[in-house]
Amino acid sequence: MPTILGQNQYGKAENRVVRIVRDGETHHIKDLNVSVSLSGDLDDVHHCGSNANVLPTDTTKNTVFAFAKEHGIDSAEQFGIHLARHFVTSQPAIHRARIRIEEYAWERIDSDAANSRATDADAFKHSFVRKGQETRLSQIGYDGERWQVISGLKDLTVLNSTDSEFWGYVKDGYTTLKEAYDRILATDVSARWRFNWTDDEQPAPDWEGSYEQVRRHLLHAFAETYSLSLQQTLYRMGTRVIDRRGEIDEIRFSLPNNHHFLVDLAPFGLKNDNEVYFAADRPYGLIEATVLRDGAEPQIPVDLTNL
Amino acid sequence: MPTILGQNQYGKAENRVVRIVRDGETHHIKDLNVSVSLSGDLDDVHHCGSNANVLPTDTTKNTVFAFAKEHGIDSAEQFGIHLARHFVTSQPAIHRARIRIEEYAWERIDSDAANSRATDADAFKHSFVRKGQETRLSQIGYDGERWQVISGLKDLTVLNSTDSEFWGYVKDGYTTLKEAYDRILATDVSARWRFNWTDDEQPAPDWEGSYEQVRRHLLHAFAETYSLSLQQTLYRMGTRVIDRRGEIDEIRFSLPNNHHFLVDLAPFGLKNDNEVYFAADRPYGLIEATVLRDGAEPQIPVDLTNL
Amino acid sequence: MPTILGQNQYGKAENRVVRIVRDGETHHIKDLNVSVSLSGDLDDVHHCGSNANVLPTDTTKNTVFAFAKEHGIDSAEQFGIHLARHFVTSQPAIHRARIRIEEYAWERIDSDAANSRATDADAFKHSFVRKGQETRLSQIGYDGERWQVISGLKDLTVLNSTDSEFWGYVKDGYTTLKEAYDRILATDVSARWRFNWTDDEQPAPDWEGSYEQVRRHLLHAFAETYSLSLQQTLYRMGTRVIDRRGEIDEIRFSLPNNHHFLVDLAPFGLKNDNEVYFAADRPYGLIEATVLRDGAEPQIPVDLTNL
Amino acid sequence: MPTILGQNQYGKAENRVVRIVRDGETHHIKDLNVSVSLSGDLDDVHHCGSNANVLPTDTTKNTVFAFAKEHGIDSAEQFGIHLARHFVTSQPAIHRARIRIEEYAWERIDSDAANSRATDADAFKHSFVRKGQETRLSQIGYDGERWQVISGLKDLTVLNSTDSEFWGYVKDGYTTLKEAYDRILATDVSARWRFNWTDDEQPAPDWEGSYEQVRRHLLHAFAETYSLSLQQTLYRMGTRVIDRRGEIDEIRFSLPNNHHFLVDLAPFGLKNDNEVYFAADRPYGLIEATVLRDGAEPQIPVDLTNL
Repeated sequence: MPTILGQNQYGKAENRVVRIVRDGETHHIKDLNVSVSLSGDLDDVHHCGSNANVLPTDTTKNTVFAFAKEHGIDSAEQFGIHLARHFVTSQPAIHRARIRIEEYAWERIDSDAANSRATDADAFKHSFVRKGQETRLSQIGYDGERWQVISGLKDLTVLNSTDSEFWGYVKDGYTTLKEAYDRILATDVSARWRFNWTDDEQPAPDWEGSYEQVRRHLLHAFAETYSLSLQQTLYRMGTRVIDRRGEIDEIRFSLPNNHHFLVDLAPFGLKNDNEVYFAADRPYGLIEATVLRDGAEPQIPVDLTNL
Repeated sequence: MPTILGQNQYGKAENRVVRIVRDGETHHIKDLNVSVSLSGDLDDVHHCGSNANVLPTDTTKNTVFAFAKEHGIDSAEQFGIHLARHFVTSQPAIHRARIRIEEYAWERIDSDAANSRATDADAFKHSFVRKGQETRLSQIGYDGERWQVISGLKDLTVLNSTDSEFWGYVKDGYTTLKEAYDRILATDVSARWRFNWTDDEQPAPDWEGSYEQVRRHLLHAFAETYSLSLQQTLYRMGTRVIDRRGEIDEIRFSLPNNHHFLVDLAPFGLKNDNEVYFAADRPYGLIEATVLRDGAEPQIPVDLTNL
Repeated sequence: MPTILGQNQYGKAENRVVRIVRDGETHHIKDLNVSVSLSGDLDDVHHCGSNANVLPTDTTKNTVFAFAKEHGIDSAEQFGIHLARHFVTSQPAIHRARIRIEEYAWERIDSDAANSRATDADAFKHSFVRKGQETRLSQIGYDGERWQVISGLKDLTVLNSTDSEFWGYVKDGYTTLKEAYDRILATDVSARWRFNWTDDEQPAPDWEGSYEQVRRHLLHAFAETYSLSLQQTLYRMGTRVIDRRGEIDEIRFSLPNNHHFLVDLAPFGLKNDNEVYFAADRPYGLIEATVLRDGAEPQIPVDLTNL
Repeated sequence: MPTILGQNQYGKAENRVVRIVRDGETHHIKDLNVSVSLSGDLDDVHHCGSNANVLPTDTTKNTVFAFAKEHGIDSAEQFGIHLARHFVTSQPAIHRARIRIEEYAWERIDSDAANSRATDADAFKHSFVRKGQETRLSQIGYDGERWQVISGLKDLTVLNSTDSEFWGYVKDGYTTLKEAYDRILATDVSARWRFNWTDDEQPAPDWEGSYEQVRRHLLHAFAETYSLSLQQTLYRMGTRVIDRRGEIDEIRFSLPNNHHFLVDLAPFGLKNDNEVYFAADRPYGLIEATVLRDGAEPQIPVDLTNL
């Protein structure tokens, strides 16, 4: 036969599960979008349509919702670990599971009122407003022996209105760009970081605490770097995370350079002293790189975006 | 001639202007998306392509950027007033201008650090992260005599995890819905409110302060209403704003009912005690209404959405 | 009481119904997105949450799916008429219904094979590929006495690579645009047209045939107009429809001017003789107008877009 | 130093270039979205912000537009080859280039008229309507020695209204799905296929002709497969391409199972004999696999989507 089947996987994508925990009047919320992907002895279903080894994608969906009850959702990562372990250990034909999760953050509508003891503050204890900002990401892989946990975020939009330059670059026959000594630097941070936790014998990281700290380091490194290029800023963001967070061995970024062009107001007799900018859509610079702990093997795929 | 020209308008849409104000190391940012729409003596351009009365849309774009320098951007509303007045008073053929503005909010990356006096906090004084959450909206209309200012917001996503019921409704031959005595109520608030400021002789509202207060009232009324229907919650949100904000005479809402369905876990031997929900996409309920100060004339168009 | 309830409506939006008709091996498909909106005696539900007059939005959803079986879907317009009549005539508290429908077109995967008599062509008789291009739109309003049917389309993207000029316009202190004597003219046609059928006594239009003819006239008028401004092209498109289609009294357009800027290649020693263009995103011109049959009253709302 | 730099790349993404070729009155159009990504000796810019080896992303943008003039755009693949070769051979520090291209298809507004010799048909010779349907994709990689060309498409939405079953699958404690013996099968085809052309010495494929044939084989295999699972349909689509197109060695698919659920009309006293379906959004099955020519090495990345 001239053709063969290569890598394949299947499952139910984008299961939108919301979990409420009631602690008296005070409620807590977890809001996830969970995608299941399974691999294993699946040649027959491709070759002749035999589903004898196929756990239906509908069943993987049911499992997501049932596990939200059975195990709760302490963190997206822990929830994904429960799911991945279940599919690999309970299904003889399934040898690998990958769970991908997007998490949407909520905050209380009025935290002052909600945290007070006044009776009229009770309403706020179960009222939430979606936080907006970044989407938190997790990917959990399991092959029955070892874990691979990659967390991350996307659409965290940041901007420095100064402390950014760009000059000293290569000039060829197609170069028209003028050097810049004080420009806006803005990007939508998309990042994925890999934990060095791979084994049930190791103590698991504090998934929630780790996320908050990585996010804080990314924001602070972005703010504190006097930037000569977006690559330099990216590298500082990466090294900050690797240096400060011992549980993480690798981080990859995909950073669009959200161009803010200084508008030429001279035709109208006006001087534009770094005051008025046009925020452009396309095209945009795209800067991507991996930063690793020395000795670590790169495992995060190169493509975080499809463009 | 069997056909005639009806209402018409033209301009440049979605001018993305970012204005930075430098107060020493501390920078301030305004991030707007400005759409210009002009009406007037424009029959000829439609009938025969004569552009003699047409100020190019490119010029309206230039004016947006130039005015960001000339007038600054104290608020979206004030900026729109400058623009609308300019087009109507400077162009003999233009009799009406409508300026629509979306505003994207930013916050400082670390407000504690940015507000401190420590030298190493300087970096944070010009570093921002986009706030996410709602998009603020403004629409300024001017006909040379009177102003119409409609402000608003969209995509403010809120959720009450209890204190919502739905029962006692009409049942016909197509009704299968079961009555609910404790359900999630969630929506993406889209609202527009009209100011009773119409005349340059009146003192103008505090546009920035008014927005913050209206937003707060909307959130609090949503949180505090024990809801028997989304219509009731909507009406409470509207009356709260009209009651508390004397500068506003009319408010209109378009509130999708973001269904969160309690998942049936019985087939798996599990009880779902208001814990696990499926967040659905389509279809969704859509509840729309206007709330007016008694005696006020409704002016906000019925359609805030295109569906 | 200082506040009053104004216009209000409610229903289930975006019911995605697909109807298959089997004619032996040959299948036919209709793919709709149906939104229901009802008005009437609904003060109580807003004021105090009494749902005694409220037909649940869930029931309106069920009715959409049930009617797809009971009445079939000959056309989106006819389907909407069935629905609107049902809600107004069967529900005492409902006095007005508005049904909005998006329709997605499909074509057979291989029409030659599907239309042949060969046995091996049977597979193609129930295999479809989505056509892409425009989304067809319908809006049916009914108050128990009179009908208002507005059909339309959106996202029909067209481009003339020549036969477009723009010059002779107003120049003020903010004008920098250079006159153009041979430019690309491109737009995404968004149009709504109103039928003069309002009464069950009148013979109803051929909804399907009318749509095809209006679409053809719009395309041909766009192609055949030597354009001195997009307003002129718009007006020719409108008059063509009003002149040729007696069943239509009013048409409104919202036409973005999708700018294609000639790229300056002189810095690279190259001449750009109307060959290489940059297709811009934002900002864009936005040209909107209504064309009416003489004597007809304008009824289509001014805002087809939300910007 | 505890951190090291891993894989990195940079360039300008989403350059929207439109190329018009005038053949007398008859014009031809190519409409591309081109993303450039370069790798090489770029450690310094990450470590210390030295741009000495950095060709600005702005220059890569200029090159895209200049090359559209200098080389024309015979096909997206050929255009990408020109660009990739240029960056690698002209920039000493750049060792690898990857060009990604999306292509949007246009058709003439009235091909009958445009192809006729009548004078009044001239207008149609330079008037186009965007075709909709799929987006064509190309990715060209070059390291100075060997080429890797991966073409593909996305968003080609297809549907079989019968000839699809799903039964005989694994049932565990979370399985509730009922077996189906006549269901709708629908998907949005996303596929990438790799050419075995890797060397300038080999004759290059007919890129345009190859695309049309692969697209036709995908549609026909989808239509002609009596399907017992989407995996089976996928595999048939893949083998058809590998069997029939000798220039292609590998193809990968990401196929969402666009669920169309038969609506239960029994509560309304109606029988639903495969007539009325609800087209669901989320969640959806997601089936992904690679099909290879025997002996070929898999090179297409596993992730075509980010979920």
